[in-house]
Amino acid sequence: MSRAVAGPEIERLIQLLARVPGLGPRSARRAALQLIKKREQLMSPLAGAMQEVLGKISTCRVCGNLDVRDPCSVCTDATRDPTLLIVVADVADLWALERAGALNARYHVLGGTLSPLDGIGPDDLNIPALIARAQDEAVGEVLLALGATVDGQTTAHYITELLRESGVKVTRLAHGVPVGGELDYLDEGTLSAAIRSRTSL
Amino acid sequence: MSRAVAGPEIERLIQLLARVPGLGPRSARRAALQLIKKREQLMSPLAGAMQEVLGKISTCRVCGNLDVRDPCSVCTDATRDPTLLIVVADVADLWALERAGALNARYHVLGGTLSPLDGIGPDDLNIPALIARAQDEAVGEVLLALGATVDGQTTAHYITELLRESGVKVTRLAHGVPVGGELDYLDEGTLSAAIRSRTSL
Repeated sequence: MSRAVAGPEIERLIQLLARVPGLGPRSARRAALQLIKKREQLMSPLAGAMQEVLGKISTCRVCGNLDVRDPCSVCTDATRDPTLLIVVADVADLWALERAGALNARYHVLGGTLSPLDGIGPDDLNIPALIARAQDEAVGEVLLALGATVDGQTTAHYITELLRESGVKVTRLAHGVPVGGELDYLDEGTLSAAIRSRTSL
Repeated sequence: MSRAVAGPEIERLIQLLARVPGLGPRSARRAALQLIKKREQLMSPLAGAMQEVLGKISTCRVCGNLDVRDPCSVCTDATRDPTLLIVVADVADLWALERAGALNARYHVLGGTLSPLDGIGPDDLNIPALIARAQDEAVGEVLLALGATVDGQTTAHYITELLRESGVKVTRLAHGVPVGGELDYLDEGTLSAAIRSRTSL
């Protein structure tokens, strides 16, 4: 905006909203105006919810998840199967797997993947705690739910080697055709993997 | 999400973020996670900016703009031309015109347009104050920057009638081809208006 049509407090609100993923400079302006208009019904509760989360959030000391309690809601959920431990790179992956709702297990968040190019080594990830959990607890299977990328596969390979002597079963996610996906648009690597892992009908 | 992967405080933050224009249920989840990860750099300042705006925001008693001061930043800007008064339906229109930056004038926000179908009559809009401003102040021209819709044009006609005896010049925005627009996609009404208002080269 060339001139100030609103005080610096509002401009600052717009600038901060523009940094929220999903909002850009233009939609931040629209969002700010709607927040101001609906200040009682929306902005005030939202600011309050942020303050509450800010005051309570922490990294779970057991699994590395982010939550308002420590140990987190997942680790303290007694209904979850204690024999299956799902290893993910990021909290976002944990949330995505929970949305799928296919498993009622516990998780371990690495906080990234091994990436020599970015200078991320084993000491930068939450790996020692994973090895300890896989050996100490009632864990029978460790599912490495890591991305099908070079870094993800390098990390999976590294963890598999570390767990080889523990006797725990180590698995990975299947490769294949995405549900709803057209074969025509799939890359050769995925198609080859889907053919190799074909199942009987 | 089928089960709680995070405490109720985080679920509430996600639900409130989903109501922000520009964010939906899915992007709200992603936004919440990023806010939590960047809590020091982003969520904390954002919550603070909201609280500050909440504590200060009000409707300008002169023009109806929303700002952290009253009279607002626009009304108190001494560099603006006091002879031109731009009438808009909504604060969003004021912001849009300021982004265009074509005029350095003052504004009057009606708070909507006349709409018999929605039961919005003259008494529901900020019209009496407009008539008073147009007559009392040094105003020489009132530019009705209202939408080219039935309700916008009804409102423009109504205000024009009210101002007829005051002697002030009343204008409206030009109709025509949007800059960057293809003739092929334009409706007949706009094309007819653009032909009638053609200018010499």
